[in-house]
Amino acid sequence: MAEGAAREFDKRLKTAADAVETMLDRLLGPSPLAGEIARPGRLLEAIRYSSLGGGKRLRPFLLIETARLFGVEGEGVTRAAAAVEMIHCYSLVHDDLPALDNDDLRRGRATTHKAYDEATAILVGDGLLTYAFDVLADPATHADPAIRAELVLALARAAGFGGMIGGQVLDLEAEQSTAPHTAEAVIRLQSMKTGALLHFSVLAGAIIGAADAKARAALSAYGHALGAAFQVADDILDVEADEATLGKRAGKDAGRNKATLVAALGLEDARKRRDRLAAEAIAALDLFSQGLDAATLKEAAHFVAKRAS
Amino acid sequence: MAEGAAREFDKRLKTAADAVETMLDRLLGPSPLAGEIARPGRLLEAIRYSSLGGGKRLRPFLLIETARLFGVEGEGVTRAAAAVEMIHCYSLVHDDLPALDNDDLRRGRATTHKAYDEATAILVGDGLLTYAFDVLADPATHADPAIRAELVLALARAAGFGGMIGGQVLDLEAEQSTAPHTAEAVIRLQSMKTGALLHFSVLAGAIIGAADAKARAALSAYGHALGAAFQVADDILDVEADEATLGKRAGKDAGRNKATLVAALGLEDARKRRDRLAAEAIAALDLFSQGLDAATLKEAAHFVAKRAS
Repeated sequence: MAEGAAREFDKRLKTAADAVETMLDRLLGPSPLAGEIARPGRLLEAIRYSSLGGGKRLRPFLLIETARLFGVEGEGVTRAAAAVEMIHCYSLVHDDLPALDNDDLRRGRATTHKAYDEATAILVGDGLLTYAFDVLADPATHADPAIRAELVLALARAAGFGGMIGGQVLDLEAEQSTAPHTAEAVIRLQSMKTGALLHFSVLAGAIIGAADAKARAALSAYGHALGAAFQVADDILDVEADEATLGKRAGKDAGRNKATLVAALGLEDARKRRDRLAAEAIAALDLFSQGLDAATLKEAAHFVAKRAS
Repeated sequence: MAEGAAREFDKRLKTAADAVETMLDRLLGPSPLAGEIARPGRLLEAIRYSSLGGGKRLRPFLLIETARLFGVEGEGVTRAAAAVEMIHCYSLVHDDLPALDNDDLRRGRATTHKAYDEATAILVGDGLLTYAFDVLADPATHADPAIRAELVLALARAAGFGGMIGGQVLDLEAEQSTAPHTAEAVIRLQSMKTGALLHFSVLAGAIIGAADAKARAALSAYGHALGAAFQVADDILDVEADEATLGKRAGKDAGRNKATLVAALGLEDARKRRDRLAAEAIAALDLFSQGLDAATLKEAAHFVAKRAS
């Protein structure tokens, strides 16, 4: 049973990733859906380099699977999933810049500012961020403008000062300080920097699925727990993994007074927290056990906690 | 009569700038309208440094005055005007970065990356860009979600790959080339880099004002001509002005093989083009002469063409 669920999960993760890859390829192609947009050639190449062919596409998967809980699938859902992935990709491109994390490698490839140059990386990030809102606000994503406006607002909040941007600033400040970081501060930082966009992915699926207030609250709790589990798992992974497996410099967090939960809690307690959060995420979906099938989202919580890269 | 119109214009420009300043101060304050947003202190300070207390607020003014043509004014309009100014401010912060224009001064003050640091400037820009969509998509801006979704889509297009971002890339490429730039190429570049957001400002006023197709087409033509006049006036200004008047390094365009219309056309023809575009902008508003009073928007075309800084 558990093994069958895991196989089904792997299949669906792959299906979602393929659908999003195809959609990104269309949206970011030389003849995009929005035909009037003329994109200078070199920029287009750098945008595609930064967005295509990489990653598990976890955020799109969460959006697609949540919408599917409510029987909604198809092009509009895939467009919204591509929009959240654009935000994720933009954040990686800007975070890797010399003035921020100064990373040369990402998923085993040169980062955008290394493969191109800093100016291009800044503009690629700005462009992907902007285009995500274009895609969400476009009638092709959903016929109902109220849904589109709600998606835009939720994404802007998740990606903005109270979400990703704010978390990134807290992260930079933490790195510059020499004092040890409290678990509470790290948890707040992580919930903003990475948790908010994972939470949005689930919430967006609920918005598109026209979930009622009760289902939305359950999915919101799931999204928060999953986001927190993801980040503590990432901290644990950084300590455990070696460079070859991970495709980025492993152990770098410890070298920089990075705010991590392994540093704040110790490895053992960090693992306990990760497993508790995964269980919380799964429990939040109990609501759906009578009717709608949330087995894939439950499996996603295991996946996020146990992933090896 | 012409002098009276100019006085009235000055008064309205000041009124709009004050209203937008107050709105930006609220939206970007420690207790913002969106109360749940917690903004790290240093970031907040840098955001306010980059957004408050500067500029003529021309884009907000165009939005406010266009909406007023249709009898729409008040908080929602001012919020939309603040959103377009956030986009303008973000674009200045990122354009000034060392990897892009590498400017130390803006409006006579240190640029954001000089007053703070590069990492902060990148994040301030990202945050302002994101927050502009938050403000537009918020129900406080307009009760009708269809209007909000349309504003978001129009802004994303104006600021995106086919607008500001695309124009910025063309500008960088032009600067790196040693060949002289054709007038046609410069006009395309400028219509994307600066024209698109000026055009959006007018269009957004028409969207909020629920303008009919005929009025919208006239205002769109006005916005395009005004945007083009603005940029050629800027090119002329760069040649004429000295550093003290302008608050930025004057003559810098000529030193860099910048794509300017003065270089492509010569000063005399550039002036003719500027005056012809201003006249075109004014003529586009003839539609409104029977009923609605477009005198202020007409005066804006004179202002844009003749401004001394």
